[in-house]
Amino acid sequence: MELEQARKDLVTLQVKMSAYSHAMGLISYDGETTAPRGTAGNRAQTLGILSEITYQLSTGADTVALLEYLDSQKEQLTERENRMVYLLLKDIRFMQKIPQEEYVAFEKLAVESEDVWHSAKINSDFASFAPYLEKMVDYRLRFARYAAPDMDPYDYWLNEFEPGLNREKCDAFFGQLKARLVPLIHQCAARPQVSDQCLKGNFDDARQETLAYWLMDVMGLDRDHVGLSTTEHPFTTSLGSHLDERITTHYYPEDLSSSMFSVIHEGGHALYDTGSDEDLAYTVLDGGVSMGIHESQSRFYENILGRSKGFARFIFPKLQALFPEEMKPYTWQDFYKAVNKVQPSLIRTEADEVTYCLHVMIRYELEKRLMAGELEVRDLPRAWNGMYREYLGIDVPDDRRGVLQDSHWSSGAFGYFPSYALGSAYGAQFLAKMKETVDVDAALEKGDFGPMNQWNREHIWRYGCLLTPAQILENAMGQPFDPSYYLNYLEAKCKDVYGF
Amino acid sequence: MELEQARKDLVTLQVKMSAYSHAMGLISYDGETTAPRGTAGNRAQTLGILSEITYQLSTGADTVALLEYLDSQKEQLTERENRMVYLLLKDIRFMQKIPQEEYVAFEKLAVESEDVWHSAKINSDFASFAPYLEKMVDYRLRFARYAAPDMDPYDYWLNEFEPGLNREKCDAFFGQLKARLVPLIHQCAARPQVSDQCLKGNFDDARQETLAYWLMDVMGLDRDHVGLSTTEHPFTTSLGSHLDERITTHYYPEDLSSSMFSVIHEGGHALYDTGSDEDLAYTVLDGGVSMGIHESQSRFYENILGRSKGFARFIFPKLQALFPEEMKPYTWQDFYKAVNKVQPSLIRTEADEVTYCLHVMIRYELEKRLMAGELEVRDLPRAWNGMYREYLGIDVPDDRRGVLQDSHWSSGAFGYFPSYALGSAYGAQFLAKMKETVDVDAALEKGDFGPMNQWNREHIWRYGCLLTPAQILENAMGQPFDPSYYLNYLEAKCKDVYGF
Repeated sequence: MELEQARKDLVTLQVKMSAYSHAMGLISYDGETTAPRGTAGNRAQTLGILSEITYQLSTGADTVALLEYLDSQKEQLTERENRMVYLLLKDIRFMQKIPQEEYVAFEKLAVESEDVWHSAKINSDFASFAPYLEKMVDYRLRFARYAAPDMDPYDYWLNEFEPGLNREKCDAFFGQLKARLVPLIHQCAARPQVSDQCLKGNFDDARQETLAYWLMDVMGLDRDHVGLSTTEHPFTTSLGSHLDERITTHYYPEDLSSSMFSVIHEGGHALYDTGSDEDLAYTVLDGGVSMGIHESQSRFYENILGRSKGFARFIFPKLQALFPEEMKPYTWQDFYKAVNKVQPSLIRTEADEVTYCLHVMIRYELEKRLMAGELEVRDLPRAWNGMYREYLGIDVPDDRRGVLQDSHWSSGAFGYFPSYALGSAYGAQFLAKMKETVDVDAALEKGDFGPMNQWNREHIWRYGCLLTPAQILENAMGQPFDPSYYLNYLEAKCKDVYGF
Repeated sequence: MELEQARKDLVTLQVKMSAYSHAMGLISYDGETTAPRGTAGNRAQTLGILSEITYQLSTGADTVALLEYLDSQKEQLTERENRMVYLLLKDIRFMQKIPQEEYVAFEKLAVESEDVWHSAKINSDFASFAPYLEKMVDYRLRFARYAAPDMDPYDYWLNEFEPGLNREKCDAFFGQLKARLVPLIHQCAARPQVSDQCLKGNFDDARQETLAYWLMDVMGLDRDHVGLSTTEHPFTTSLGSHLDERITTHYYPEDLSSSMFSVIHEGGHALYDTGSDEDLAYTVLDGGVSMGIHESQSRFYENILGRSKGFARFIFPKLQALFPEEMKPYTWQDFYKAVNKVQPSLIRTEADEVTYCLHVMIRYELEKRLMAGELEVRDLPRAWNGMYREYLGIDVPDDRRGVLQDSHWSSGAFGYFPSYALGSAYGAQFLAKMKETVDVDAALEKGDFGPMNQWNREHIWRYGCLLTPAQILENAMGQPFDPSYYLNYLEAKCKDVYGF
């Protein structure tokens, strides 16, 4: 193989993969946003065909030969090219270790399993889902052993979702969190509860949409390249490259904060993706590098900036203008307290900033025990409910609002949850570093996201997947990751809101 | 090659082509409906890659070998299979006759030409577009000579857009139309003009949308498989198969009729596409067979049913309920007259039912002369304006509202326009035949489209592309095509509305 041709082929391969990713991503996005109700089968038909084609493109003999040749020429390649080859080969090498018939069977099972989980959740019927979950645990254990026989299987999956992560680090991280968060929650509970009445009412969808677009503009999202649609569950997706990004939201007339903060959250993801250097487009280096870093950005915008005092003061007049009747009895301080109300609750995705990590911790402890064979799937609901009582002091009334609430396990994504908590903690440490050069509070009061965006772009966004998550952290923090920044941040927030 | 394997490969080929068509169709649809403004380049990138891949899939050596083998085994194949092979080979055989570099140059020019036309139209600047149009005429002439050296080039293209059509048939058809339409328009003009004031006002978008969905339900469109979105220019598209159909509309607050009749028009296209027999999905036989038959359905629903007296009576109470203030001064008879007002105008797509065909005729005469070398491109605006004066009695104030109004010629689609008029005329003859077994007027007064849909499904829709357009006509008319049905229909309508 000739080197210059191989370098060109590397570009072509990624351009083709981006085109298929655009097509398949858009078909899924259309299914979530616009498509008529009865068209899922038609989409499945097309996605099935395109999956087969892209699987062949990504892992076929020509591609493997190309990448292995390039991998043997490391010294001749640029840093970028080497990173591309590394990332492209990573999946192939995993696949090469898994017996093909097992992989196909797993993929098929995953589709069924997600489907069964959907109905099981609606009917609060864990028993119907349990046999699938057992098989998913089993597959994930076996795959980890095929891929890395010398590694603990759960460590293997933690590292897959957030490169560099393992149980030891998670245990230390969650241990530190738990030690200070549990007393913090008790401290808040001992004080008179704050009211979130100003967020409840009857908020017109069209005005909520106006607010959503206004928030996108305030955040500095480029609406020429970032679209907003509505869906049942909000998400963010890139189509083909970071040059076409979509965020989604859901308007609840009775709850102002839901759409507002999901727009800011998804907007944070979109800022990260669209902040990739322009010339990373149509390569595997385009967009965010890991779940943990992605959540560090989404939760930074949603919570650290979005629920700050300065931003509350800035945004409140806009809320008054859009919803004059509903907001008449309230001040910006009421709004600030309302969006920072701490209260143990059942559902992770609706949890406040302080109790959120306990939801994640419960999932971490349970999947660690599942993967270690210390917990049987059939005992999971009891274990779940016990931990909700222990960690959050609440009783789980049914499995729908308990162990069946999240989709992750149904597709075998064990090891995914910790990145939500890690990302939140990263963000607080970024904030501390950012404040060394940026007057964040002053900027928030003016609703000027420019300085913070500039800092994030410089330290995080522009690299796409060129740097590893560890390199990004080092780059942005300038010192080792330390969860006490996050705990200090949460304690200060609670003191301010609850006045202790 | 083994026959049974080849038959399976024929299925697989079409399933793959459907998947790519779904992906590419959706990317275009997204661009027209939802995508952020600045993402055209990103879409062009993906569509460029996917076009190359599908071109290779449709015309590559493996595909040609497969289809030529199957073509040699005609007697062993079913009627359906033979029709599939014929339709798939048709394009390949055309491509085989065109020198590849000329085809590539043409495709590239077409993109530029459409782009230049867009700006030329906005600026009413024919001179900037003329060099492109000259080249498009030239390419289309050469391609026709390559493809069918013994045929007149314009006949070749007429037959491409509507199989079976040629200049002789068009001349006869348009001759008959002109002979009776011109006096008819004069007769209407001699009577007091009817008022369309009830269609003008300030009609809320959200209520127009409610009306649009209501119309879809009334028409019997299956909203589980047919979606509605908004666009600048309304259109209809199938995604992957007739199981996912999309129509679009545009709400003008000042004009109630625009969105209303475009929903019925596009809904007619959608009824036709989605009416294909279920097992035609994912084959080249799925969906409508030709432009002429497609327009026969869209214009049948829009005009023959949608602007009928019975339907006006049925729909008016709904309009009163949605727009009580605007509709208060009017009766259903006012509404019926308003939507049937005859008045020569500048723009084809906004023309009334009676003058519409004259717009088409002007385009037909001009492109016939262009393709015959009897008219130079530079003389086109003068010729256009002269014919508008002669046929419609109006002066064209600028090329934007004249020769530059339609996009068709910018992409080289000479020979496309006649199918609009033919389709309208087909529809009137279908109506006559339909009335032999269906009480259309009674059904319309009840807003019951079931019997007409049933008839169309039985005679037209279910065949998809299995039958030729000529076979469909024979099937539905039971006698040769005769434009006098259409002329009788228009004369009766005018007599009723203008009272002569």
